[in-house]
Amino acid sequence: MWSKNKLKFVRSLAQKKYRDAEGAFLAEGPKAVGELAARFNCRFLVATADYLSANPHIRAAEVDEVSLRELAQASCLTTPHDVLAVFDKPVAPAPFQLSTTRLSLVLDGVQDPGNLGTIIRLADWFGIPDVICSRDSADAFAPKVVQATMGALARVQVVYADLPALLKTVPRDFPVYGTFMEGDNIYAAPLSPNGLLVMGNEGNGISPEVGSLVNRRIHIPSFPLGRPTVESLNVAVATAVACAEFRRQTAAAPHTSL
Amino acid sequence: MWSKNKLKFVRSLAQKKYRDAEGAFLAEGPKAVGELAARFNCRFLVATADYLSANPHIRAAEVDEVSLRELAQASCLTTPHDVLAVFDKPVAPAPFQLSTTRLSLVLDGVQDPGNLGTIIRLADWFGIPDVICSRDSADAFAPKVVQATMGALARVQVVYADLPALLKTVPRDFPVYGTFMEGDNIYAAPLSPNGLLVMGNEGNGISPEVGSLVNRRIHIPSFPLGRPTVESLNVAVATAVACAEFRRQTAAAPHTSL
Repeated sequence: MWSKNKLKFVRSLAQKKYRDAEGAFLAEGPKAVGELAARFNCRFLVATADYLSANPHIRAAEVDEVSLRELAQASCLTTPHDVLAVFDKPVAPAPFQLSTTRLSLVLDGVQDPGNLGTIIRLADWFGIPDVICSRDSADAFAPKVVQATMGALARVQVVYADLPALLKTVPRDFPVYGTFMEGDNIYAAPLSPNGLLVMGNEGNGISPEVGSLVNRRIHIPSFPLGRPTVESLNVAVATAVACAEFRRQTAAAPHTSL
Repeated sequence: MWSKNKLKFVRSLAQKKYRDAEGAFLAEGPKAVGELAARFNCRFLVATADYLSANPHIRAAEVDEVSLRELAQASCLTTPHDVLAVFDKPVAPAPFQLSTTRLSLVLDGVQDPGNLGTIIRLADWFGIPDVICSRDSADAFAPKVVQATMGALARVQVVYADLPALLKTVPRDFPVYGTFMEGDNIYAAPLSPNGLLVMGNEGNGISPEVGSLVNRRIHIPSFPLGRPTVESLNVAVATAVACAEFRRQTAAAPHTSL
């Protein structure tokens, strides 16, 4: 059974101010909880008897057994899972050290939690360990974002930074890619295995200040070129197509020799 | 000002049974309404005075002027727009005639409205005019789906069909692609400019029955290969990466001669 205080605490984590004040975040579902438990310290786990007997290896400072109906009382989801857990939020190393040998993602004002979570998930798939967000982006530890990452937060580091200030510190010849309507065809532009890939806000794209610091403007062409179409792709979808193309070119798949 | 009946009618369109019974669907926002008005008959338009004076060209059988606060009473969105419209739902041509010269998308149980809308939007971007959904997929005319399509429903036809029955009617050598964990590397598999691309349910992928009718199993490789990662990509993201690769190969972009 829930203790009143614990239930209140879990519910409070839907709000950023409480996540920040408590240094904690909530994850729901066996997949997310299982993966995150391997990386983050688990303050407590609340689960059904069935989950607990099937998953004796998950380590947590405290474990409570509740019914599925009780789990629903704290869930942020429409369909509650049989487990939820509260983890310590990682404290970002200050100042953040940008990798110059790898590809990193930079998100300039991505607002939708589903989009941010989907982007963190695809960053994991495409082997991109760092996602750097502007301070006005959605919070990576909001329940809906954690849910959409499907456990990817266990392997992808998300940091928040002043993007213009950060971009001004990169070496002059360091590739900073960004997607723009008038950019070069991404399939024709040679892509490097390292660099930054900047993606913009859902409605407004990359802000002018950040855009002025992008030195390689790229574009995902519509098909066939010139046909009337939607104005743009969803930001998570565009990020995926771009990351896939970076990796295709880097991996030098067999067909490139055709 | 709203008439009580109209407000009730608009609100009822959040439910599929009323959309089906009335043969109507709701769209919100200037982008969606503007694009859809070019294709679908608009039963009525409800908008602010500012919208109406700025958009005199939008044709509708009836036009009502209301305040933004009144629009919020009928909105399915967190942030209401300055216009909404009710359109006639297209009646599907029966039976649906599959194109054998173009690429079409087949969705086997895509459940999330945001995913379905995003997929219809990217189908428009990548020049795919037909999206064929299994009957247990989300409804393309649900308000959240319409919203996520960003007007793409004006150019992309969505039909619902018995997928196994439909797939059994295609010629034996007609390419039916589907994404599977054990499929061939999509970058190494030559992709045809025509055919079907089957994408599966968010949690379970392609159903066994539909999967048995897929004759070209493909896979989007993670990077670097073999590293632990999330189990899969989000379905809209995977659809985008696959469609982009179909179009890249078809367009024979300059770099393929490198």
